[in-house]
Amino acid sequence: MVSETIELRGHIIDSLILPKVLDQILTHGANFKIVEIDIGKKRADQSFARIEVSAETGEALDELILRLRQQGAEVVERANAQLATAPADGVFPRDFYVTTNQQTFVRFDGKEIEVLPAMVNSAIAFDRKHGTARAVKFFDVNKGDAIVVGHQGIRVVPVQRATTHTDLFQFINTTVDADEPKSAIIRGIGDELRRARAAGGKIAIVAGPAIVRTGAGRHLVRLIEARYIDRLFAGNLFAAYDVERALFGTSLGMNPDLAFARGGHENHLRAINTIREVGGISAAVHQKILTGGILHACVRHQVDIVLTGGIRDEGPIPGVTTDVIEAQKVMRTKLADVTHVIMLAALQHSLAVAGMLATDVKTVCVDIDPPAVGRAIEHQPLQSIGLVTDVEPFLRELADCVASRRD
Amino acid sequence: MVSETIELRGHIIDSLILPKVLDQILTHGANFKIVEIDIGKKRADQSFARIEVSAETGEALDELILRLRQQGAEVVERANAQLATAPADGVFPRDFYVTTNQQTFVRFDGKEIEVLPAMVNSAIAFDRKHGTARAVKFFDVNKGDAIVVGHQGIRVVPVQRATTHTDLFQFINTTVDADEPKSAIIRGIGDELRRARAAGGKIAIVAGPAIVRTGAGRHLVRLIEARYIDRLFAGNLFAAYDVERALFGTSLGMNPDLAFARGGHENHLRAINTIREVGGISAAVHQKILTGGILHACVRHQVDIVLTGGIRDEGPIPGVTTDVIEAQKVMRTKLADVTHVIMLAALQHSLAVAGMLATDVKTVCVDIDPPAVGRAIEHQPLQSIGLVTDVEPFLRELADCVASRRD
Amino acid sequence: MVSETIELRGHIIDSLILPKVLDQILTHGANFKIVEIDIGKKRADQSFARIEVSAETGEALDELILRLRQQGAEVVERANAQLATAPADGVFPRDFYVTTNQQTFVRFDGKEIEVLPAMVNSAIAFDRKHGTARAVKFFDVNKGDAIVVGHQGIRVVPVQRATTHTDLFQFINTTVDADEPKSAIIRGIGDELRRARAAGGKIAIVAGPAIVRTGAGRHLVRLIEARYIDRLFAGNLFAAYDVERALFGTSLGMNPDLAFARGGHENHLRAINTIREVGGISAAVHQKILTGGILHACVRHQVDIVLTGGIRDEGPIPGVTTDVIEAQKVMRTKLADVTHVIMLAALQHSLAVAGMLATDVKTVCVDIDPPAVGRAIEHQPLQSIGLVTDVEPFLRELADCVASRRD
Amino acid sequence: MVSETIELRGHIIDSLILPKVLDQILTHGANFKIVEIDIGKKRADQSFARIEVSAETGEALDELILRLRQQGAEVVERANAQLATAPADGVFPRDFYVTTNQQTFVRFDGKEIEVLPAMVNSAIAFDRKHGTARAVKFFDVNKGDAIVVGHQGIRVVPVQRATTHTDLFQFINTTVDADEPKSAIIRGIGDELRRARAAGGKIAIVAGPAIVRTGAGRHLVRLIEARYIDRLFAGNLFAAYDVERALFGTSLGMNPDLAFARGGHENHLRAINTIREVGGISAAVHQKILTGGILHACVRHQVDIVLTGGIRDEGPIPGVTTDVIEAQKVMRTKLADVTHVIMLAALQHSLAVAGMLATDVKTVCVDIDPPAVGRAIEHQPLQSIGLVTDVEPFLRELADCVASRRD
Repeated sequence: MVSETIELRGHIIDSLILPKVLDQILTHGANFKIVEIDIGKKRADQSFARIEVSAETGEALDELILRLRQQGAEVVERANAQLATAPADGVFPRDFYVTTNQQTFVRFDGKEIEVLPAMVNSAIAFDRKHGTARAVKFFDVNKGDAIVVGHQGIRVVPVQRATTHTDLFQFINTTVDADEPKSAIIRGIGDELRRARAAGGKIAIVAGPAIVRTGAGRHLVRLIEARYIDRLFAGNLFAAYDVERALFGTSLGMNPDLAFARGGHENHLRAINTIREVGGISAAVHQKILTGGILHACVRHQVDIVLTGGIRDEGPIPGVTTDVIEAQKVMRTKLADVTHVIMLAALQHSLAVAGMLATDVKTVCVDIDPPAVGRAIEHQPLQSIGLVTDVEPFLRELADCVASRRD
Repeated sequence: MVSETIELRGHIIDSLILPKVLDQILTHGANFKIVEIDIGKKRADQSFARIEVSAETGEALDELILRLRQQGAEVVERANAQLATAPADGVFPRDFYVTTNQQTFVRFDGKEIEVLPAMVNSAIAFDRKHGTARAVKFFDVNKGDAIVVGHQGIRVVPVQRATTHTDLFQFINTTVDADEPKSAIIRGIGDELRRARAAGGKIAIVAGPAIVRTGAGRHLVRLIEARYIDRLFAGNLFAAYDVERALFGTSLGMNPDLAFARGGHENHLRAINTIREVGGISAAVHQKILTGGILHACVRHQVDIVLTGGIRDEGPIPGVTTDVIEAQKVMRTKLADVTHVIMLAALQHSLAVAGMLATDVKTVCVDIDPPAVGRAIEHQPLQSIGLVTDVEPFLRELADCVASRRD
Repeated sequence: MVSETIELRGHIIDSLILPKVLDQILTHGANFKIVEIDIGKKRADQSFARIEVSAETGEALDELILRLRQQGAEVVERANAQLATAPADGVFPRDFYVTTNQQTFVRFDGKEIEVLPAMVNSAIAFDRKHGTARAVKFFDVNKGDAIVVGHQGIRVVPVQRATTHTDLFQFINTTVDADEPKSAIIRGIGDELRRARAAGGKIAIVAGPAIVRTGAGRHLVRLIEARYIDRLFAGNLFAAYDVERALFGTSLGMNPDLAFARGGHENHLRAINTIREVGGISAAVHQKILTGGILHACVRHQVDIVLTGGIRDEGPIPGVTTDVIEAQKVMRTKLADVTHVIMLAALQHSLAVAGMLATDVKTVCVDIDPPAVGRAIEHQPLQSIGLVTDVEPFLRELADCVASRRD
Repeated sequence: MVSETIELRGHIIDSLILPKVLDQILTHGANFKIVEIDIGKKRADQSFARIEVSAETGEALDELILRLRQQGAEVVERANAQLATAPADGVFPRDFYVTTNQQTFVRFDGKEIEVLPAMVNSAIAFDRKHGTARAVKFFDVNKGDAIVVGHQGIRVVPVQRATTHTDLFQFINTTVDADEPKSAIIRGIGDELRRARAAGGKIAIVAGPAIVRTGAGRHLVRLIEARYIDRLFAGNLFAAYDVERALFGTSLGMNPDLAFARGGHENHLRAINTIREVGGISAAVHQKILTGGILHACVRHQVDIVLTGGIRDEGPIPGVTTDVIEAQKVMRTKLADVTHVIMLAALQHSLAVAGMLATDVKTVCVDIDPPAVGRAIEHQPLQSIGLVTDVEPFLRELADCVASRRD
């Protein structure tokens, strides 16, 4: 039987940190003894707990402690983080520490350094010269880089529930099902976006083709015109749909006004061909070939368009990053200063974007498929709202709501 | 090798009758020879085909001919239907003929008699005295009744596509998915309902609890007030939700204006208790205890309310038919003169209702679950529209659309 | 600002009771101060907390305290429960207390009396003569009965996590998704059933038609023959499918061995007619008309069959309780001593059964639809396992696993 | 009113070609007159129809004729196809003809030339020198290439139902739902694969991560060892899962034998790092670092591995094609001689692969999500089987079935 002592600080009760830690200990077949506990008497007070954890083997204890650290537990005797050298470009040393998307600190020479950015599934590279710690992906690492290994000297700050009651996202913090009312929540999201815009926040949309197909594009255009959108992330397919709709009035050959004429896929390819001919979305707007639609509104209102490719793409439309690793780099850069993300009927893109966000970015996901909503928001606990609904009425109501309070 | 000759008449090409018949023959491992075919030259012309069908055994041929009859095939030599006596109350003779919901005729003494009503999964009782044929359920049959057995002397008239192009239902005739545009179709449904009302049609709603929970009740009330609804079919749960909302402003204890306070189930039971105390929905309206909601609107505007029970019910609310066989009888009576059925987020009830309709009743089904929509409309080929969407925006748009054309 | 002091006892940390209570307080916009806290130092130790709760108004505080009681909170000054008289048969007094399915005590004359049975959505009737408290449904109450009103003097014992690690149900305590491994869990369920049988537990099956259609019936029969099943709950439709399969080898006319011949609905009705003719399932078995299938195995091995009706039923098969309120009474009686429930592809029945269980009945739900699984198990926290999978491979593996360890 | 005469040939009745053509005409608001019709008298006979189609405007007629050609209609007066020059690399001339995946012929100088390969969403490039016609994607076209424009001189051969009854795929030709029996169909698929292997067919697997997570990998390995698989198409994620399972015994950190320890994502990244360090899957097998799993079996048994990237990838694992356009080229090459494709729980990849297949490739799709199955097989009418089920029991039964008949 080996044991180690850990400490927890913060809103460890109502943010469920202490219960989760005790749960992890029990689930791993280990044992605990609470050595000291001091629970905040009022809402805003911090709490503290010191817990002795014991397990059968040192290996099991190590594995368990690693999990507990990701819940915010600190090991009491403070050690420095350990480093090893990357054996080749694009390869980490074995036993490299794998980050979460929570705020993380590493200890070197007795000082704690924050790892930036807060990014999941990365290693931590330590720059001895500048004393900085970076979260790095495989493509970021070069032979000889100093990479943190093991889990000593690392402290994770778990997401904690705010102590005030004004935050819609923490309040809802779950998925609103198809048979639950959504109007009040959509109004709340509208208010949040207004506050965000006023406070200089950056709002990103992740846009799926259903926006175009369901005729919801005009509502998204209203949001763009009212300057509620700063970035738009989408795939080649979304772009092609939007252009087809703008040029031919159809979606996959279907006429949305009559909604009756199904079939026909030529317009889709002709739309792509048109943009290829002119050289890109922006050129098509400036040459007045593309005179409507969502991308047109983006170009006119200086919304950054980030288009990435997938193996089902036709074309591609010029401007789409077709190499997926390159695309990830671009997305990461364009997401760095984003404060709010609205993910609309775009599961693959939403999962990709969600995996790049720090835990303090607020996210909204709208999709008609309940599991899609659940997966898209699971990485942003206490910061996300999921709505199981059609994207068209959602955007219509959000745009109405924002328009009616235009200031 | 045995063979029999069948004939097909009507719009057998574009209503897919001939192809389906040939498909059935091939699928059953049988063979066919087209003896004579005369295809209508213009859209409105009827077509005719005489086909010799051959199979390995007489039994296989019989089985196949039975299927082909359900597609509208007639066997050439015209025989009278055969009868046997019901051995006991509620029991059919073995080998009783099982009806579809298509128009059906039986031949007795060389004359064809229409079986009424057109109702699926019934036997056919022949009344020698009056020369009439009735579709009967188990509970309808008494010992000694004359019941049609075998499949001789029976002719089924399959659903045929209209030759004009004005019918939205035949035109769509499928499910509109979540990512397809719905506005034009909803407008089309609005037009159809206006025409139906003007022509003296009867419109029934099958209503699920999600209508109340999502806050769509007020839009349904608008349709009721504009006299677009003649009957309302629902379960005890729907009624309890509607009353809870009217009395307490909540759904399962959730406040729809704020949408934030989850939990609480007392109001649900208190709502039921209130109606039990006063004796029924109608009494509650007249005593001004129930002053809002969908059922209130129904009572005020003489909409027939048909409430039926299920094994998950609390209560029940007085007026709910708790015996399911009794409930079926009531539903069947109340559906007899209905021309249009709108099924809203109520799968079990929708399937029950759909199973009682003749093939010429037009149906619309709205649900967020694609398989639910598919199952609800499969029995009304060429007469149904399915929409995969939230019920709230559907009802809002339909009520807007009907209101804007108030005449 | 008004305030009240509550107390919590038990495994309030790792069973999430304390965090949920604090969460409720914050969510209701109220405030708390932890007056005293004593957290168990070891796994098996109980914890204790005394918390002062304050809210804006007395009404808001009352509403909040009601919620907290359902989480197990006790109000410190101990008051007797209050009673009022039922105004009519089947009607509760206004403001009646609504039960959860957790263990509940009411205080009269300073003594605590357990409310039996533990049943959700009921009122509490107090029998002054015998000093007993019963959970009663609407149909149980008679004019003049003494019914508990308000929420004073009521103590709820929340479900607590076991302190040992041997319980599969507490360990899993969630839904296993389609893309997660299930073999180990199915083996674990097999072990649990063996232990349950050895310990004299009662195991109930809630059976849906898909068991028959997918050909999984033979595996359920193996479980019945091995005496693992004590009760079977199903609908008329399940019974009709099972009989059709036994008599004709088909399901809705589809031949399972070839699986190719679709269509045909006569056999379904003929199966029902056969049982109606002979008078019931049991008679059909004894007269050797029904010689195979699940119900046949039930009759042969003394498994209680509880069949209930729904508005979509054909028939019904004799023995089906068609009045839904009567059916609920029968189900409740037959569930009273059940310790384990396995719910297989039968959403409506599973929800009905789940709503009648005390919190200590262990449940397993298997369905291919993730939301169906989630809803069926949500009322048995820490006591249920959900599996998103096909019912056929589940039953095959469970029967294999039980058979291989036959003792 | 303008009109044109079209002709249809082949099994135009039972392959639904004639009905679909008449349906298209009516749906487009046009009119028809059947000038001549000659329906094959026996099963194997071809039929013929000559139909005069008339529409309001020349434009509407053109649009309609284009649709009818895709159903196999030929315009009577035979014209040569028209050509235009590609204006730039990667750009087609406006009004380029867009292919379907059906067999297509173009007429030049009075001769019909088959367009190869049969590939959807392409243009047709004509090589004057060699007299050949190629289906080309955007990346295939160079400035100055001769591309077919308009729709004159093009003949499409629609998929026709076989006249014999031996083909499982044509027989089923639909999706088998979760509640339908699958054993007989899985056995039929096993037989088909045996015949395919014996006849020198090429069998491809499209593999999703759920195969690894559910523990179905060992059954796929059995199929590989029995030489039933020639190509494996998958994403980086599948490869990472397979390697993680082989190296660490976990999936996303979950231990499949116990199935209880959730959480943990380090192993996933360590698995990728290990393969990056050694340089690739093949090197890892040869250096005995990777000694189990699906990819190991592929390397050992010369199964082609085609790995492609997506924007959610970590890594990537060396050998993954990260540029999606490059990946499409590789996939297309590797699919060129494939005769059977089995798509297992891999929606995105399955849709990508399905979009590259000619109509005569037989496909099986297995997924637990009904819409996913539907979308994956919709492009292979009369050649595909969809199964809504768990992938683990499917693969287990298929491998058992193939093993038991080892020859």
